[in-house]
Amino acid sequence: MEHPYLMTPGPSPVPAQVREELAKEMIHHRTDQFRAVLKETAQGLQYVFCTQNPVLILASSGTGAMEAAVSNFFSSGDKVITVVGGKFGERWQELALAYGLKPYKIDVEWGDVVDIEKIGDLLKKDKEIKGVFATLCETSTATVFNIEEIARVVKNYQAILIVDAVSGLGQDKLLADEWGVDVVVSGSQKGFMLPPGLGFISISEKAKQLMAQSNLPKYYFDLKKALKSYEKNDTPYTAAVSLVRALAKALEMIRKETIESRWEKFAKMAKATQAAVKSLGLELFSKHPASSVTAAVVPLGIKATDIVKKLRSDYGISIAAGQAQVKEKIIRIAHMGYINEQDLIMCFSLLEKVLADLGEKVNYGISVKTLQEELYG
Amino acid sequence: MEHPYLMTPGPSPVPAQVREELAKEMIHHRTDQFRAVLKETAQGLQYVFCTQNPVLILASSGTGAMEAAVSNFFSSGDKVITVVGGKFGERWQELALAYGLKPYKIDVEWGDVVDIEKIGDLLKKDKEIKGVFATLCETSTATVFNIEEIARVVKNYQAILIVDAVSGLGQDKLLADEWGVDVVVSGSQKGFMLPPGLGFISISEKAKQLMAQSNLPKYYFDLKKALKSYEKNDTPYTAAVSLVRALAKALEMIRKETIESRWEKFAKMAKATQAAVKSLGLELFSKHPASSVTAAVVPLGIKATDIVKKLRSDYGISIAAGQAQVKEKIIRIAHMGYINEQDLIMCFSLLEKVLADLGEKVNYGISVKTLQEELYG
Repeated sequence: MEHPYLMTPGPSPVPAQVREELAKEMIHHRTDQFRAVLKETAQGLQYVFCTQNPVLILASSGTGAMEAAVSNFFSSGDKVITVVGGKFGERWQELALAYGLKPYKIDVEWGDVVDIEKIGDLLKKDKEIKGVFATLCETSTATVFNIEEIARVVKNYQAILIVDAVSGLGQDKLLADEWGVDVVVSGSQKGFMLPPGLGFISISEKAKQLMAQSNLPKYYFDLKKALKSYEKNDTPYTAAVSLVRALAKALEMIRKETIESRWEKFAKMAKATQAAVKSLGLELFSKHPASSVTAAVVPLGIKATDIVKKLRSDYGISIAAGQAQVKEKIIRIAHMGYINEQDLIMCFSLLEKVLADLGEKVNYGISVKTLQEELYG
Repeated sequence: MEHPYLMTPGPSPVPAQVREELAKEMIHHRTDQFRAVLKETAQGLQYVFCTQNPVLILASSGTGAMEAAVSNFFSSGDKVITVVGGKFGERWQELALAYGLKPYKIDVEWGDVVDIEKIGDLLKKDKEIKGVFATLCETSTATVFNIEEIARVVKNYQAILIVDAVSGLGQDKLLADEWGVDVVVSGSQKGFMLPPGLGFISISEKAKQLMAQSNLPKYYFDLKKALKSYEKNDTPYTAAVSLVRALAKALEMIRKETIESRWEKFAKMAKATQAAVKSLGLELFSKHPASSVTAAVVPLGIKATDIVKKLRSDYGISIAAGQAQVKEKIIRIAHMGYINEQDLIMCFSLLEKVLADLGEKVNYGISVKTLQEELYG
C-alpha cells in the first residue's frame, strides 16, 4: 500500500482542492460564468508574474508558450541572443533555428550562469539584435539564472528580454516589471500546482511593438488574436476549461499564502535541501542552485536512474535523474508548487535507504536531521 | 436549484466516471505507468478513427491539431484545395494563408455540401495540388460533408485528403482507412466526452511521404518528433496527463458501447431532432444535416441569442446560437458525446417554454411527442 508522491520538477503534486475543480461538471466557455473565471485568473497571473502586463493563457504545455514567444515577436532572419546552459536553454536555440532566426548562441557551462558581459558585448557590437532569450530556473541543471542583471543590460537596447520561467516561477523570484523582463513564459504543472496542459505568457509594451512587425507564420499561437480576446475575458480558440477553473483555485491558494512568503519558503527549503545533500557526502551540481529544484551529483559507481527507479518502485516516490549528458550523473529533487517541508524530510529518509540498498555507506538520519535543523531550527 | 446541462456542440458534457479520472492524484509522464495509458489510448483512438495509422495526441485544442495538419505536410507556396462551407472550412483557408500556401478555395453555400466535380476538375487541371482540406461535420452549419465521395476522387491524385473531424468524429461516420482519408483531425471536447485541451491527428503513409519534404517552420506541433515519441508510447513535450488519463476512461466507455451502435444512436437522435424542429414549425438550416448537431432557423422576429440566453439563464441549459453571418438566424442543438435521448426531450420541453415566453404560439408537447415517437416508437 504505497503512498505515491511526486518530488519531480514537473509535473508536481496537485492539491485536492484543485483536483476537485477539475472534476466539476463541464461548463461552456463562451459564457459570463467562464469569462468571470478568465478575469479572475488574469489578475491572479499578473500577481504571480509580478506584472501589470497582460498574461495570456494558452491551451498547450510550456513549450507551446515558448514557441509563441519566438513566432510572435520576430521575423525570419532576425538576430537574437540565446543563453544556453542546459536543456531548456537549448530549447530556445532550437526554436530560434526552427523559425529561421539568426541566434548568437552563448554557451554556458551546465550548472553555471551566464557572464553578463557577453550579452552586453554582443548587444553593443550588433545593434540589430532584437531579442535575448534566457531561462529563470534551468531545470536540467537546477540553476537559477541572473535575470535581474541580464534585464539591467538588455533594457538599454532595442532588444526585448524573453525569459523561460516554466519551472522557476513562484519559487525563484522574478519581478517582471521592476526588473524589466518583457516576456515571461510559464506552464501549469510546476509552481502553479496544476496538471500539465496550460502555458502562460506575459507581454510588455516594448514587446507589443515588435509583434506588429513580425512576419513569421502562426495561427493557434497568434498572440495578437489572443490579446484581442483577452480584452474581453475570452480566448480565440476553445480554452482548456477544466484546467482554467483549477487554475483559479490554485491562484487563490497562492495569493492567500502570498508570493513573498512562498519565495521565502522555497528559498529556505532549497537551502535545507542543499545542506541535506552535502550531509550525505554528495556534491551539488549547480554553482547557483535554484529555489525550485536541487541537483545532487550521485556517488561514484551508482547510476542516477537506478536511484530514481528504486525510489519509485520500492516506495512510490518520484524524483528525477539528469537529462542528456548528465543523465546518470545527477538526481534532481523538486521543491516547488505544493511540495512542502515534511515532503522533503520524507523524501530524504527514503533516499538514505535507497542509497544504502545500492551499496553506499549511509549514516541513517543524517540528512533528515540536517533538514530538521535547517527548516525548524 | 438549477441542473445546468450542456447541449452545445462542444464543450459537451463529461461523464462522472471521466471527471473522476481528472481528479486523481498527479503522476509523472515519463513512467511505465503513464506509457501504459498512452498505449491504451493509442489503440482506443485508432478504434474511433477507424484506422491502423498512428493517431497522435497533442496538448492543444482541435485548432492546434488543424495547424499541425497544415505546417507538417506542406511547403511554402504549395497548392492546396480548401473546401469552405462554414466557419471551420474558413479556418482551413486562414491556416493555409497563414503558412503561405496557395489555396484554391471552393466556396460552398452555408448549409450545403461541396460539389465533388469541382474538386475533381481542379485536381485534373492542376497536377501540382498537394492537399485537399475538408470538414466532416461543419459545426457552424450543422452539415455533414460527403467525405467518402471526396476521398474517392482525391485518392487518384498525389494530393492527400485532410479532414477536420473535430465535432463530427464519433457521431458522423468516418472510415478513415476504408475511404482513404490521409489525415483526420479531432479534439477532446465533443464526441470524446472530455474537457477541451487535447487535439488528435492521424497520419497515413501517403501523408508521411509529404512530411519528409515539408519546409514550414514548426516545433511544438512537429509531427515527425511526435511520431518518434509515439513509437515508444511517449510524447516529445509534457503530455496533458490528467486529460490523457480521462481519455483512456472515455475510450473504454466508447469501445464498450461500440462505435457502430454510437453512429446508429446519434443518427437516430439527429433524425428525431430534425423531426422535432419541424414539428415546431421551424426549418432546418442544413441541406445535409449532421448526426452530431442540428441547426434550426429561428422564428421571424426572434433573435437566436435571446433563445440561447433565456434557456441558459432560466433553466441552466446551454445550446448554441449561430456563428458569423448566421449568428441570429439559427440555434444549434448538439447530440454528441455523452448527450442522450432523454437529454433531447428535456431540452425541447424547455425550448417550447422559452419560445412561448418569447411570444411564439407553441402547442405544448408537440416536439416532445415527436421525439418520443421517433426515439421510442
